[in-house]
Amino acid sequence: MNEEADTGGLFAPERVAVIGATEREGSIGAAIIQNLADFTGDVVPVNPSRDTVFGEPCYPDLASVPEPVDLAVVVVPPPIAVDAVREAGEAGVRNVVVITAGFSETGSEGAQREQELRAVAAEYDLNLVGPNSLGVLSTPAGLNATFGPSNALPGSLSFMSQSGAFITAVLDWANDQGIGFKDVVSLGNKAVLDESDFLTHWRDDPETNVILGYLEGVADGRAFIDTARDVTQDTPVVVVKSGRTEAGADAASSHTGTIAGSEAAYEAAFEQAGVVRAENVQELFDYARSLDGLPMPDSDEVGIVTNAGGPGVMATDAVGDSGLSMASFTDDTLSTLEATMPEEANIYNPVDVIGDADIERFETALDTVLADDSVGCAIVISAPTAIVDYEELAAVIAERRLEHDKPVVACLMGGERAEPAADVLGEAGIPNYFDPARAVSSLDALSVQRDVEARSYEAPESFDVDRERAREILTDAADRGARRLGVEAMGLLDAYGLPTPDSELVEAPDAAESAAASIDGDVVMKIVSPDILHKSDIGGVAVGVAQEDVADTYETLMTRARNYQPDASILGVQVQEMVDVDAGTETILGMNRDPQFGPLLLFGLGGIFVEVLEDTSVRIAPVSGREAGEMVDELDSAPLLRGARGRPSADEAAVEEAIQRLSQLVTDFNAILELDVNPLLATEDGVQALDVRLTIDPDQL
Amino acid sequence: MNEEADTGGLFAPERVAVIGATEREGSIGAAIIQNLADFTGDVVPVNPSRDTVFGEPCYPDLASVPEPVDLAVVVVPPPIAVDAVREAGEAGVRNVVVITAGFSETGSEGAQREQELRAVAAEYDLNLVGPNSLGVLSTPAGLNATFGPSNALPGSLSFMSQSGAFITAVLDWANDQGIGFKDVVSLGNKAVLDESDFLTHWRDDPETNVILGYLEGVADGRAFIDTARDVTQDTPVVVVKSGRTEAGADAASSHTGTIAGSEAAYEAAFEQAGVVRAENVQELFDYARSLDGLPMPDSDEVGIVTNAGGPGVMATDAVGDSGLSMASFTDDTLSTLEATMPEEANIYNPVDVIGDADIERFETALDTVLADDSVGCAIVISAPTAIVDYEELAAVIAERRLEHDKPVVACLMGGERAEPAADVLGEAGIPNYFDPARAVSSLDALSVQRDVEARSYEAPESFDVDRERAREILTDAADRGARRLGVEAMGLLDAYGLPTPDSELVEAPDAAESAAASIDGDVVMKIVSPDILHKSDIGGVAVGVAQEDVADTYETLMTRARNYQPDASILGVQVQEMVDVDAGTETILGMNRDPQFGPLLLFGLGGIFVEVLEDTSVRIAPVSGREAGEMVDELDSAPLLRGARGRPSADEAAVEEAIQRLSQLVTDFNAILELDVNPLLATEDGVQALDVRLTIDPDQL
Repeated sequence: MNEEADTGGLFAPERVAVIGATEREGSIGAAIIQNLADFTGDVVPVNPSRDTVFGEPCYPDLASVPEPVDLAVVVVPPPIAVDAVREAGEAGVRNVVVITAGFSETGSEGAQREQELRAVAAEYDLNLVGPNSLGVLSTPAGLNATFGPSNALPGSLSFMSQSGAFITAVLDWANDQGIGFKDVVSLGNKAVLDESDFLTHWRDDPETNVILGYLEGVADGRAFIDTARDVTQDTPVVVVKSGRTEAGADAASSHTGTIAGSEAAYEAAFEQAGVVRAENVQELFDYARSLDGLPMPDSDEVGIVTNAGGPGVMATDAVGDSGLSMASFTDDTLSTLEATMPEEANIYNPVDVIGDADIERFETALDTVLADDSVGCAIVISAPTAIVDYEELAAVIAERRLEHDKPVVACLMGGERAEPAADVLGEAGIPNYFDPARAVSSLDALSVQRDVEARSYEAPESFDVDRERAREILTDAADRGARRLGVEAMGLLDAYGLPTPDSELVEAPDAAESAAASIDGDVVMKIVSPDILHKSDIGGVAVGVAQEDVADTYETLMTRARNYQPDASILGVQVQEMVDVDAGTETILGMNRDPQFGPLLLFGLGGIFVEVLEDTSVRIAPVSGREAGEMVDELDSAPLLRGARGRPSADEAAVEEAIQRLSQLVTDFNAILELDVNPLLATEDGVQALDVRLTIDPDQL
Repeated sequence: MNEEADTGGLFAPERVAVIGATEREGSIGAAIIQNLADFTGDVVPVNPSRDTVFGEPCYPDLASVPEPVDLAVVVVPPPIAVDAVREAGEAGVRNVVVITAGFSETGSEGAQREQELRAVAAEYDLNLVGPNSLGVLSTPAGLNATFGPSNALPGSLSFMSQSGAFITAVLDWANDQGIGFKDVVSLGNKAVLDESDFLTHWRDDPETNVILGYLEGVADGRAFIDTARDVTQDTPVVVVKSGRTEAGADAASSHTGTIAGSEAAYEAAFEQAGVVRAENVQELFDYARSLDGLPMPDSDEVGIVTNAGGPGVMATDAVGDSGLSMASFTDDTLSTLEATMPEEANIYNPVDVIGDADIERFETALDTVLADDSVGCAIVISAPTAIVDYEELAAVIAERRLEHDKPVVACLMGGERAEPAADVLGEAGIPNYFDPARAVSSLDALSVQRDVEARSYEAPESFDVDRERAREILTDAADRGARRLGVEAMGLLDAYGLPTPDSELVEAPDAAESAAASIDGDVVMKIVSPDILHKSDIGGVAVGVAQEDVADTYETLMTRARNYQPDASILGVQVQEMVDVDAGTETILGMNRDPQFGPLLLFGLGGIFVEVLEDTSVRIAPVSGREAGEMVDELDSAPLLRGARGRPSADEAAVEEAIQRLSQLVTDFNAILELDVNPLLATEDGVQALDVRLTIDPDQL
C-alpha cells in the first residue's frame, strides 16, 4: 500500500508512453499499442531500436519525449524492466504499469528484482501497478493499456483482479452481457499499489458505483480492513476471494489455531470491513448489477407478482433461504388487489395474476404491491404467454420501479424471447434472470449493503488496564526462557481486567498451606511447568483439596511431575480458589495470529461445542462492542448461554466485555502469538477465567 | 398412480383427436391444433359446431371418427369436460389429456368434478393426464399437444412439471441453449396419472437418458419412494421440489413433529429413493446436461488443466466445497508433465499450462491427466488468449474425453467467443460453463448418481417381534379411551425387542413394594396418568427410591397427582429399575406421520442437540440397516456416540437395531400417530429405552 498514492493519473492520463513498443505480431508491445488505438490522449511509443511503431514516431527513451508523460507502460524484458522504471522516475512520470513478468512469481532471482523495483518506486514516489500485470483500462478516456484481447464497455463498475487471465475472460463475457466498467486494473504482484489503494481511489471516484475484486490474498490485512470499512460506508465492495480451500494451511499449532484457519480470518475481515463476499463469478456480477442499478430497500420484505404459480413458489422458497422475507400485505393492499384482480388470482403474496394476465393487470398488481409501505422490494415473474409482450412488460416494470423508488428485479423467463426485454430492463438498471433464485439473491445483496452502510463505525473500547504489569509478566517469562506459559500467567488476564479466581503460585508445601489458608475453603492445585502441557493427563491437577491435605497434595503433585518427566522445569504449584463450574457455562476465548490479518479472536462454548461441533465465531482484533456481541450471537449454541434447557443463564455483557478486554491485550502485545482462555466460565454474575495457555515470542517484546 | 398404466400411447400415438378444436385466435383449441402441425401421425379435430378446422375435416364427436384414436386431448369447457372424457372412453381411446381447468384447483365444485373425472377414468381404465394441464409433448413423433408458445428440440431428457407455465419458460430457454427433450408432460392436477407413473414409463423408455421433474408435492409418498428407488438404479432422476419454505406447516404438535416437518420428509424421501435434488432451475439443467452427456466417474478425484491461474484456483475451491476432491497425481504423471510442460508451468493439480499454451500443450496436459488412474474426471479451463482457438480446443477436449472414457467438463471462458466452442462441446455431451463452480457441481452430480446406482436395494430387516402383544397393548389403551400413552406403554417397545428397564405398573403401595423387591436395589417411581403429560414438573417422578421407602413414595406420588389435578385419571405408579444414565449417552428416537410419506423416523442425541442445535436425522420408515446407519452417521454430534471427549462410547449396532425395530413397529401399526422414545440410553453394552410417549388413533386399529 502506498500511503500517499494519488492514483488518478493511472486511469486518466493525458499522455501514455509504452516502453518496449513494437509492431511484432503476437508481442505484448504490439498488442498494447493496438489496444490504445481509441485512447483520447496521446500515445508515445518508446523503443531504442525503432523509428516508428504503426506509423507513429517512436522515441529511443523517455528522456527524449518532448512533452510530459503521465503514465508509462513497461513491457521490456525482465532484466531491463527495473531500469526502465527508473528512467520513468527520472523523467518525472508518476504512474507506471509494469506488464513485464519474471519477478517474485518466479523464484529468488525474480524476488530480488521485485525488491529493486520496489526501491525504485519508493525513490521516485511512483504509483506502480504490477509487475506481472495485464495492464489497466479506463473507459471514459478510451484507455485500454492491457494486452488482453477485449476492451470494456463503458459503465460504473470498477474491477481489480489478482488474475489477469480472469480479466480477459470477464471482459469477453461482460461485453456479451452488456455489462460495462469504469476502470479495470490487473493487480499483478502488487509490489507497490495493492487492493487498498484502489479501494481508496474508487471511493473518491464519482463515476464508480460499485467496486469489484477478484483476490487471492490481501497484501496488508490490517490496512485492508481499515480502508474497506471506510469505503464500504458509501461504495459497495463485492469480492470473490479464492484459495478458500487452503483454509487452515497456515493454521498455528494450538488448539484454537487448528479450528480458525486463515479462511476464517478472511471471512471475519470481510464481515468487519463490510465487504460483500461473492462465492463465485456468477454471484460477483449478480450482486454488482443490482448494487449498480438499484436503490437500497427500506425493508427486507419482498413482494412478488407473477403470472406463473410454479416460478412464484420457487421465488418464495429462495426468499426463505435468503436474509429477506415475504411481505405481509396491508388490508388496503389486499382490498385493492381483490377489487382489481380476477377471482382466480391469488391476492396474497406471491401475487398470482394468472396466465391470462395482460400488461395492465401486471401493472396494477405491481403498482399496488409497491405502494404497500411494508414492501421493501419486489420481483416480477412472467412465463411466456401469448398475451404479454415482454418488452412492454419490461417498460412497465422500469417505470413502476422509478415511480416508487424501490428496488425491483425481473424474471421474464425465456430464451431469445426475453433478450430484448432484458435490454430494456438493463437500461433501467434492472437485472433479469431466468432463475428466480438468482433474482432473490441479487435483492439480498442490496439488503446486506444497506445494513453495512447503516452501521456506524464504533471504535474498540479502550479499557483501563495495567499494561505495565502485563508487560512485566511477559518479560519475566521471556527472561527465564519460557515460550509456552500456563496458569502461572493468569496475572496477565488479571492485569487486563478479566476476572480470575484467587490464586497463588507456590514453591513449597508450607507456602501452599498458607496460600490455601488465605483463599479459605477447598482449593484446586495444579502443577506448573512449561514442559508439561497436559497437566490433567499426568495427574498434575487436584480438585477439591481440603486445607489439611494441601501440604501432602503439594508433594504428590511434585512427585508425579518428576516421575513423568525427570528433567522438566517445574515452577511450582498453583493453589487456586475452587470454582463451581456447574454454576455456569464453560466457554473458550482464544486468539491466534493470522499471517495476513494479525490477531484472530475465537469464541465458543467449551468442550464438544468447539471440538466436535466446531461451533465457534471469529473476529480480527481489535473488536468493538458490537463485534463482540456478534461473536456471541453467531453461535448456534448461544441459546445455552441464555438459559435454554434450564441451564444457568450467563451475564452476556460480561462475556462481551471479556472478549473486548482480551482483544485489547492481544492488540497491545504482538509478543503473544497464541492464547487460550479455557475455560472462561460464564455465570449469571459475570465471567471467570479458570485457566490460560499462551505462546510468546520474546523478540516482539 | 395408475397401477396398470401402459402410458406409451400418450407419447407415441398414431392418431390424436382434439376435443374442442377450433380456429378462434387466442383459443387453446386453436393453439393445440397449430402446435400439432408437425405431428407425424394423424390429427383429428372434434367439435360439433364446425365442419373443418384449419382446412381439416372436423367431426362432431369421437364416435363419428372412422379410424381408431389413441390419444384424445380435451379442451372443452369444464362443465362438459367429464362427458368428453366419458365419450373418449366409450370410443375406446386409452389415453386422454385434459387441458381444461376448473377442477380441484378452484374449490368444492371443481373438486366434485375431479372426483367424477377420476371415476370415469377408472371405469374405462384410462391413462389420463391432468386436468388443468398444459399438455404433452414428444419430439420423436413431432407431437406437441400443448397450448404453449414453444416446441421442444429433440433430445434425451424427459421432463414432467407440476407447473405448466414453468414448461413454457423452460422450453423457450432450452431452445436457446440447444437443450433438447424426448418427452414433456404437464402433470396438472394429477387426478389419475402422477409422477410415479411417468417415472416408470421413462425408466422403460430407451430414448430417455435422464428424467427431470418440477414438483410441488407428490401424490402418493410411499409409491413415489418405491418407484423412484427402482428407477434411479438405471436412470437418473433430477427434481426441483418447490414449496420448501412451507416446511413444518403440517408439522404435528409433538416435540418430534415440531422439528421434522414435511420438508424434512421430502429430503429423506429423495435421499432414500436416490433422487438427485436440484435446489433451483439452474442446477436442474446443469445436472441434467452432465448426466445426459457424460459417463459416471470411477473415482471422485478431479484433475484440472487450465491456462489461467485464477480460474484454476476458483475451480479448486469449488472442488473443496463439493463431494469431490482434488486428484494427487502419480509420479508417472508428474514426470510426464515435467518433461512436456514449460518450466513456468505448474505440474501439480490444478495443472497450469500458463497463458502462452497452444492447443498441443493443452492436449498433452489433458491426455496425461486423464491417463492417470487416480483421476476420475477432469475440468479444462481456458481464458481467452491470442494463441488458443476455442473451437479447436473444444474438439480436442471432446476427442480426449472419448478416448479416455472419463467425464470432462469445460470452462472455455468468454462471451460470444465461446459460443461456437460450446456448440462443439455440446455435440459431444460436454457442458461448457463460464463459472468454474458450475463446472464442478455438474461433475459432482455424476458422482452422486454413480453412488445411487452402486447401492443395492436392501429390504428392511424383519425382526422376530411379538406383534400380537403390541396390538393388545394398543387395543387395551384404545378400549379405555386413551389417546396419549406414556411409560405404561413400555411393553410396546419390549414386544418389538427394544430393551427396556425392568418395570411394573402397580396400583397399590404393597404391590409397589413387591414390584421393587423383584427388581432389587433402588428404583425409579413415576406416576402414570394420560392426563398428566409433564410428570416431572408436578413432582410425579421419584428417582433412587430405597426399597424401604417404596410404599411411602407411592402414596406421596398419588397425593401430588391428585392435588395437581383432582379429576385426572390415574392408572397407577410405574416402578422401574434404576439406570445409570451417566454410563451412556441419551438419544431420542421418534416418529411422526408425514401427510405425504407416512412414518417419518427421527434420531438425535438428546437434550440440547435436538432442542437447541436441531442436530437430527430423519428417514421414512421402513428403513434398512444401511439407512439406520446413515441416520447415526449424519449427525454432527455422532462423534459423541463414538467416545469423543472421553464420553462413554455407544454400541452403534444396538442403536441401529433399535432404529430398525422402531421402524418395524410404526410400519406395522398405523394407529401409532406419533411416538417418542426419550431418552433411548446408548451405552457400550447396548441401548435401553427409558421412557416413551405416543399418540394413537383407535380408528386405525
